[in-house]
Amino acid sequence: MNLSHIEHIGIAVKSLQEAIPFWEEKLGIPCYKIEEVEEQKVRTAFFKIGASKIELLESTDPEGPIGKFIEKRGEGIHHLALAVSNIQEQLDELESKDVVLIDKKPRKGAEGLDIAFLHPKSTHGILLELCEDNQNK
Amino acid sequence: MNLSHIEHIGIAVKSLQEAIPFWEEKLGIPCYKIEEVEEQKVRTAFFKIGASKIELLESTDPEGPIGKFIEKRGEGIHHLALAVSNIQEQLDELESKDVVLIDKKPRKGAEGLDIAFLHPKSTHGILLELCEDNQNK
Repeated sequence: MNLSHIEHIGIAVKSLQEAIPFWEEKLGIPCYKIEEVEEQKVRTAFFKIGASKIELLESTDPEGPIGKFIEKRGEGIHHLALAVSNIQEQLDELESKDVVLIDKKPRKGAEGLDIAFLHPKSTHGILLELCEDNQNK
Repeated sequence: MNLSHIEHIGIAVKSLQEAIPFWEEKLGIPCYKIEEVEEQKVRTAFFKIGASKIELLESTDPEGPIGKFIEKRGEGIHHLALAVSNIQEQLDELESKDVVLIDKKPRKGAEGLDIAFLHPKSTHGILLELCEDNQNK
């Protein structure tokens, strides 16, 4: 695998409006974009730290993945995303090694990235995402 | 604040022996060190991804923080650590902004770093650590 860096950490919050000031005012990191990802039923606020991003995730639907996560566990770190190249090749390689994939083919995520999730039962409990930025290729 | 990058992600696992092969064999990232941090009642396995690290945390005592975390929530992402400089200044600044600190003074963490945790009630549910590498200063 060719993992280059931590692309982002996804953090489930009840309210972007309440959570953004912690990152902006206490930690001093400006939110550079808010984006709604309809398919995932979330609104996302982005912050940059070095080569990585923090993505705060607010549910737009109690039945969506973030709504269910917060109902079950409360606010907290939801997933870890690693930057890769040739994402389809990586997914095929992982599947050949018996890693259970949520997405066998990449789909579009926030910021136009190609993304795919691995199943937590293959990763010792973490929701792991692979991300590839193919927009400038 | 002068946050430079994500220093590491701490991930609670039941067994290093069972979890390390996922990172090494499936993702292809070698574990470069295993270290016991007695004060935290954990054994930690380290992996490098870009400027950041993954720290797998295995409890050495059911009454320690990772033992309790796993009992309550199962395996999963435990904390997020951000690299800073002048950690004491950052802690003083955060306290002046009414952020609740677990550690008002930095203490020694894994790999000899100076570390301090912020309280989840001030961070919208995440356990956030600040880290400074003062070993080569």
